[in-house]
Amino acid sequence: MQVFYNDRQAAHHGKHEMFRGELVPCFEVPARVEHVLAELKSRKLGEFAPVPEIGDALLQRVHAPRYLRFLEGAWDEWVALDPKNAQRDALPSYWPIRTFRHDVLPESFPARMGLFSYDAGSPLTSGTWTAARQGAACAWGTAQRLLAGDRAAFALTRPPGHHAGHDFFGGYCFLNNAAIAAQALRDGGLQKVAVMDVDYHHGNGTQAIFYERGDVFFASVHGDPRTEYPYYLGYADERGACAGEGANLNLPLPRGTDFVTWRGALAKALEAIRAWGAQAMVVSLGVDTFEDDPISGFRLRSGDYLRVGEDLAATGLPCAFVFEGGYAVAAAGVNAVNVLDGFRQRAG
Amino acid sequence: MQVFYNDRQAAHHGKHEMFRGELVPCFEVPARVEHVLAELKSRKLGEFAPVPEIGDALLQRVHAPRYLRFLEGAWDEWVALDPKNAQRDALPSYWPIRTFRHDVLPESFPARMGLFSYDAGSPLTSGTWTAARQGAACAWGTAQRLLAGDRAAFALTRPPGHHAGHDFFGGYCFLNNAAIAAQALRDGGLQKVAVMDVDYHHGNGTQAIFYERGDVFFASVHGDPRTEYPYYLGYADERGACAGEGANLNLPLPRGTDFVTWRGALAKALEAIRAWGAQAMVVSLGVDTFEDDPISGFRLRSGDYLRVGEDLAATGLPCAFVFEGGYAVAAAGVNAVNVLDGFRQRAG
Ligand SMILES: [Zn+2]
Ligand SMILES: [Zn+2]
Repeated sequence: MQVFYNDRQAAHHGKHEMFRGELVPCFEVPARVEHVLAELKSRKLGEFAPVPEIGDALLQRVHAPRYLRFLEGAWDEWVALDPKNAQRDALPSYWPIRTFRHDVLPESFPARMGLFSYDAGSPLTSGTWTAARQGAACAWGTAQRLLAGDRAAFALTRPPGHHAGHDFFGGYCFLNNAAIAAQALRDGGLQKVAVMDVDYHHGNGTQAIFYERGDVFFASVHGDPRTEYPYYLGYADERGACAGEGANLNLPLPRGTDFVTWRGALAKALEAIRAWGAQAMVVSLGVDTFEDDPISGFRLRSGDYLRVGEDLAATGLPCAFVFEGGYAVAAAGVNAVNVLDGFRQRAG
Repeated sequence: MQVFYNDRQAAHHGKHEMFRGELVPCFEVPARVEHVLAELKSRKLGEFAPVPEIGDALLQRVHAPRYLRFLEGAWDEWVALDPKNAQRDALPSYWPIRTFRHDVLPESFPARMGLFSYDAGSPLTSGTWTAARQGAACAWGTAQRLLAGDRAAFALTRPPGHHAGHDFFGGYCFLNNAAIAAQALRDGGLQKVAVMDVDYHHGNGTQAIFYERGDVFFASVHGDPRTEYPYYLGYADERGACAGEGANLNLPLPRGTDFVTWRGALAKALEAIRAWGAQAMVVSLGVDTFEDDPISGFRLRSGDYLRVGEDLAATGLPCAFVFEGGYAVAAAGVNAVNVLDGFRQRAG
C-alpha cells in the first residue's frame, strides 16, 4: 500500500482554540502524525510514495476560488494588520449566520476570515496554507493510485479535512482532503464514488459538498449531533437533495456507544454503499472513536480497528484512506495503522 | 421628556470579548450609562419615570420564543455545565453558517449558544437576562409615552439592542430595544412607524426584523460594512423585500466622514422617512460616531450632537430615543444628552 505524506504538513501548528469562553491549547497537534508514521515504519506497512503536485484546477473542483485565494494570502494579511500578529494565531470573531449576506466580500481581513469559517476553534497559522495544500496533494496521490489499479492507498494528511466546506474552514479543517480524493476519482473516469466517514465527528463539509450530487455517495457513522460537534448537521433525516437525493446516509450514535453497536452501523453504511453501486471508496479515517480520546465519547479499543479494516476490505472496493481526527495522540498511531493492517490482511 | 432607566441594567457586565485572536476587556461597560445619567441630572433634562413591566407577549412579537427561553435560562445552564463557569462569562465557539441547519435545537448548551448568536464578542453573564429585559421594558415605556401623546421620551438602555435579531444575539446586543419600541407603537395603533438608526454601526438586527414588512421603515447612516462591523449587512442595495420593498434605506459612509457629510446623509434619511409617511420615529441613539470613540471612525464633535437633535425635531415626528452604542465612555454622556437637548430646544 502506497503512503503519501509530506513533512511540510507540520508547518501547521495552532496554539489556541476557543473552548467554553476561554482560549485553551489546541488538541490538533503535529505529534498526531508522528505516531502514525512511527507505527507504519515499525510494522513495515506501506511504502512511502512521492507526493504529486496538486493543481489549482482540482482544488477548484471542490472549493470556491475566492476561498482558496483567501487561504493562500491569509497569513500575510493577518501580519499586515499588526506586526505583533506574527506571534499569534489568527482566529475569527464574527460569522454571517442567517439574515446576513455572504455574497459581498468585505475588505476587512477579520471579516473575511469570519465569512470563510464557522468556528473559533481552528487557528490559522503561518504554515496553514502550505500544510493544507500538501495534505490535499497527498489525498490526490491516493486517488491516482486507485486509478492506476491499486487496491488501497493512504494519505497521512494534517490538518484534517472533513469539516471544511466548499468555502469555509472549521473543526481544524481547511481543505477537504476526502472530497478532493473523491472528486479526483470521478474526474479520472469512475462514475460512482462513495465516501465512508468513520471519524467520531460528522463530516459536515464532505456531506455539504456532495449533498446535491448523484455521483458521490456520502455515508457517516458518528456521534449524535444533538450533543456532539459539529451539532448543526449530521442528523438521520439528511438524505441528500436534487440529483443527490438518497445518496447521503447519516448514522448518528449516542455517546458511550461500544464497538458491537458501532460495527453494526458501519455494516449498514457499507451495505448501502454496495447497493448504490460504488466503484471505489474514500475512507475518512478518523480514530477519535477510541475509548480514551480526550474530546470524544465512543468506546472502541485498539484491537477493534483491525476489524474495521477487515470490514472495509470485505466490500471488495478499492479504498483511498485519508487521515482525519484522533486526539489520543500516541494511540492514534496504533489505531489508524490497525485499520490499514486489518484491511491489508483481509484484502490479501 | 420622560426618561426610563432601571439600575438593574448594570447587572450585565461582560469581562472579555474576542478581538483578533485574543480575549480583550469589553468596551461595553456599565459606566457608559452612569455618564449619561449624570449629564441628564446636571442639566435637569428629563424626568425619571417608573419602568413598566414588559410582558412576554410583546417580546415575542419581536423575538422567537425559543430564543427568549434560551436567554432566560442561559446563565443557569452555563454554570450547570461546570461550577467553575460561575467565575467566567459565557462565549460561544461555533455558529451555524451556510450549509448548516438551525431548525434542530441541539441539547448541548454551547451549541445552542452558537445557534442563537453570530459573534464571539458578546459575553453572556449572570445578569444579562435581567439587564436586557429591563432595557426592553424601558423601550416599551417610551412607546407608551408617545402613544399617550408625548413628543419624545428616552430609554437609557444597556446592553444595547440594534444588532440583536429575531433569534440571535451579537454586537453586545441581546434584545432589540428599538424594534420592541417600534412594534409597541404599531400595536398601540400607529399604522406607519420608522426607525432611524444613527449609531456608527449598522443596525443589522433591526433591519432584518422588519425587512419584509411594509409597516416599519428602517433607515440607517453608518460606517461602510466593507470595512466596519457588522460587515455582512448594511449595504446600500438592501432596499427591503416582499411587503417591505422600499422600506429599508442604508446610507453607508467611509471611515473618516465628518459632520457635514454625515448630516447630509441624515437629512436624506429623514426626508425618506417623511416621504414614506411615518407617524412616529424610534431613534437608535448610538453616539459612537464621536471623533474620539475608540472603536469607530467618524468625526462628529460634541457640539454636533445638538444639531442632530434639532434635525430630528425638525421632522415634526414624535420620537422614542433608545440608547445604543458609544464607547468613549465619559463623552457618551455629553453627546447623548446633547441630542436630547437639541431636540428639546427645537421642539419647544
Ligand atoms: Zn473527529
Ligand atoms: Zn455602535
